[in-house]
Amino acid sequence: MKIGKSTIPRTRICTSDEDSIRVRGEDLCLQLIGHLSFTEYFFLLLTGRRPDAACKAVLDATLVAIAEHGFVPSVQAARMTFAAAPDSLQGAVAAGILGCGPVILGAAEGAGRLFVDAAARMDQGASLEEAAAAVVQPLADRKEAVPGYGHPLHKARDPRVDRLFEVAREAGADLRHVRMAEGIERAIPRIVGKDLRLNVSAAIPAVLLGVGFPLTSMRGVPILARTAGLIAHLAEEAEMPSGFALSHQATLHLESS
Amino acid sequence: MKIGKSTIPRTRICTSDEDSIRVRGEDLCLQLIGHLSFTEYFFLLLTGRRPDAACKAVLDATLVAIAEHGFVPSVQAARMTFAAAPDSLQGAVAAGILGCGPVILGAAEGAGRLFVDAAARMDQGASLEEAAAAVVQPLADRKEAVPGYGHPLHKARDPRVDRLFEVAREAGADLRHVRMAEGIERAIPRIVGKDLRLNVSAAIPAVLLGVGFPLTSMRGVPILARTAGLIAHLAEEAEMPSGFALSHQATLHLESS
Amino acid sequence: MKIGKSTIPRTRICTSDEDSIRVRGEDLCLQLIGHLSFTEYFFLLLTGRRPDAACKAVLDATLVAIAEHGFVPSVQAARMTFAAAPDSLQGAVAAGILGCGPVILGAAEGAGRLFVDAAARMDQGASLEEAAAAVVQPLADRKEAVPGYGHPLHKARDPRVDRLFEVAREAGADLRHVRMAEGIERAIPRIVGKDLRLNVSAAIPAVLLGVGFPLTSMRGVPILARTAGLIAHLAEEAEMPSGFALSHQATLHLESS
Amino acid sequence: MKIGKSTIPRTRICTSDEDSIRVRGEDLCLQLIGHLSFTEYFFLLLTGRRPDAACKAVLDATLVAIAEHGFVPSVQAARMTFAAAPDSLQGAVAAGILGCGPVILGAAEGAGRLFVDAAARMDQGASLEEAAAAVVQPLADRKEAVPGYGHPLHKARDPRVDRLFEVAREAGADLRHVRMAEGIERAIPRIVGKDLRLNVSAAIPAVLLGVGFPLTSMRGVPILARTAGLIAHLAEEAEMPSGFALSHQATLHLESS
Repeated sequence: MKIGKSTIPRTRICTSDEDSIRVRGEDLCLQLIGHLSFTEYFFLLLTGRRPDAACKAVLDATLVAIAEHGFVPSVQAARMTFAAAPDSLQGAVAAGILGCGPVILGAAEGAGRLFVDAAARMDQGASLEEAAAAVVQPLADRKEAVPGYGHPLHKARDPRVDRLFEVAREAGADLRHVRMAEGIERAIPRIVGKDLRLNVSAAIPAVLLGVGFPLTSMRGVPILARTAGLIAHLAEEAEMPSGFALSHQATLHLESS
Repeated sequence: MKIGKSTIPRTRICTSDEDSIRVRGEDLCLQLIGHLSFTEYFFLLLTGRRPDAACKAVLDATLVAIAEHGFVPSVQAARMTFAAAPDSLQGAVAAGILGCGPVILGAAEGAGRLFVDAAARMDQGASLEEAAAAVVQPLADRKEAVPGYGHPLHKARDPRVDRLFEVAREAGADLRHVRMAEGIERAIPRIVGKDLRLNVSAAIPAVLLGVGFPLTSMRGVPILARTAGLIAHLAEEAEMPSGFALSHQATLHLESS
Repeated sequence: MKIGKSTIPRTRICTSDEDSIRVRGEDLCLQLIGHLSFTEYFFLLLTGRRPDAACKAVLDATLVAIAEHGFVPSVQAARMTFAAAPDSLQGAVAAGILGCGPVILGAAEGAGRLFVDAAARMDQGASLEEAAAAVVQPLADRKEAVPGYGHPLHKARDPRVDRLFEVAREAGADLRHVRMAEGIERAIPRIVGKDLRLNVSAAIPAVLLGVGFPLTSMRGVPILARTAGLIAHLAEEAEMPSGFALSHQATLHLESS
Repeated sequence: MKIGKSTIPRTRICTSDEDSIRVRGEDLCLQLIGHLSFTEYFFLLLTGRRPDAACKAVLDATLVAIAEHGFVPSVQAARMTFAAAPDSLQGAVAAGILGCGPVILGAAEGAGRLFVDAAARMDQGASLEEAAAAVVQPLADRKEAVPGYGHPLHKARDPRVDRLFEVAREAGADLRHVRMAEGIERAIPRIVGKDLRLNVSAAIPAVLLGVGFPLTSMRGVPILARTAGLIAHLAEEAEMPSGFALSHQATLHLESS
């Protein structure tokens, strides 16, 4: 069955012929390989623009911040998958990436939307406090979580948050969304009734929006970062297996239930 | 059902408590975020060591070289998947990564094994020519492809190959495996009977082995790199859809068969 | 990092010890293998109940109806993935399943929700016409599609729809949701302004709700069915490859754009 | 980049136009929906033939036997994935399927190859004992596992094995490969030095080869079966979450290491 209109597929990212490959208008071999870091290239691929120094510094910092956090569920899923199918590294990485969903890592985009929404209200004359309250209140009314606030382990502020803000400040990034992220943090106890601190998922859009990283690709940052962490875990799994041991431990106290 | 011995899962990559996260023995917030690039961090995650300058330059170059090549099959699969399930970015990325298998991207590890095997023969006294012939001959005898040689589009040497070798040379990397890759290229016409040139999948291990990147993680390089390319294609798909158009075009001339 | 409360995992589906396996309270070897069809077992696994004859007939019919429709995008994605990674059948199946998202196959659950919502309105005294209009109008107001209506190929009513309704009728199923599905079809031209006919995605919940299949598992039906179709396509791909040819054809008219 | 020869994609499975869908030469609506069970349709999709009564009985029995076994690693991976990305049922199913690899479920094809190989030796005059020994000896010499023999939980013969053999016998299936499976079981203690009993992964090809199920699609049976089990587990996860609890329990005794 044919699906899709009879249109011609198009991409602006890459063209190639037998002798050359052009990415975003630049010659891959002459202008890009050896001239950009992988992080800079990721930004170029996404946006068509080369990042400036602040953007590079902040994007590197966010990717480093979110790549790894031990035996999180997606890492466990990937290691169990690899233990069961060790000849398919790509399958185990894919299984891990599939857990990069809204609950665990997807808050980055949701938090980013809050900041952009609140910033637009400030542009229209609202104070920081008013704008923060205006975006938190509807979530509280619907009893929905505020994306990017609260953390199962780090009850005080996630230590990565301050460090990311510091990197953004040192890099000379626009700090408007950082201030908004903190304004929302201050508004939450009063409106939501709980002291939920900024976590790394909110800090990422707060700093990335200030260096021109597109909101619509925010979820790509944890996905790319976690891929690096997953590859490291699977390399470790190949040499020092834990996948089946994790599965075994997980069900140790099951029979008695 | 419980599977796996009753052992305790272990990882050496990351430990954390409520206040801090340590990765490979270093404090994530104090020593890593803002101090390393994502590429350097990937190497640290994988190996437990920080890369030196040559390693960083070469690893960045390989990730840039392999991240993107237009509408390749895995990108098509990812864009079709995203068109059908647009609320799951992670699912579309996973679908694309699943195509990073032996045929398309997996040659990197296979080629790396050839170079390591051949280098070991040189350590035992073989000449470059003898070592190259010794690893190609068994493949030719079994009528198997030489992994990393030949390309459907780039009949002459893939333009990325020379550029990667140049970056390695400029960075001061050990060029032993580069010389071996070229020795094998010279041996192929005589032994295999076809003039198959080095492609990028062979160039990647040739340069990475010279900067201490582990052979066993070679397949992780194209997987991480392609994840960046996939995220860029899916951002484009969200704004300028081609997924269903690709599917439509693919079956345009089917009915008549 | 530990995620999740310190609770004990629980499942009511299966328990086992060294000598026996019990599924939904029945002994797998003594009571199930050889006594139920796979379709009946699927229903038992999902609900904890054995299906009656009508349920079995209708569930089989829906699974047969939706399993296969040629080179749809998810099949193309799976075949391209298998061509690139032929040693991982499970990876290619997974890539295909990832395209079983809201746009292509996910309408089954959405349509089912409409029918349940409309049926509840009839229970509260609305006529069929009023109930149908009441659930379509909000979608029209928000300019959203009515899930399960309209089809890119079958402009008249999808031929599978009438056949599924006929099977439900012959099996003695409750036809309430079938009548509602047709009531909505009649309401659409007036409210939406387009003559969108029932497609198979709406017919599936219409007949399954009448035999006690749970609404919340409706998306499982196309996923299970398509898995069978994908396995058949991948068996064909192994013997008569089309994956790369599909990819090639898809981009044949790209360069000129 | 275009990959793949400029050939026209072909499939023999399904053709369709605006009014009808034909699968394996039969009209989907007139001849298949309501006339075949899903299991029969799976066989038709795969082979182009309708199964006879013995084949239907045995294929149903194998699918029921392998669909579910509690919190196995692939179910755990799927439930963790769903807990993290609850709006993507297809993603969680895909994560579970990715664990249907060689170690856990892939033994079915490997065992099937042994039986076919051994049966061919009997056709050439070997006795059952000689044929069994001939296929086990090379594995023992290479210190490789005999696929389909031994089980982490069921040290005595897996209870599903006898039941599948019984179903095959009652259905009137060709029992040649069943006898070979048992011959290999008898040969293993002497040749391998361990008393490894037949597990369900070997019983599946033993009975399916006797009813004409193709060896090359043997891995499709556990994949399809487990998809049903995964969908049931994810329906349970939606109502009674265990995904994060599994992940938590798995790492309970980690810190002390």
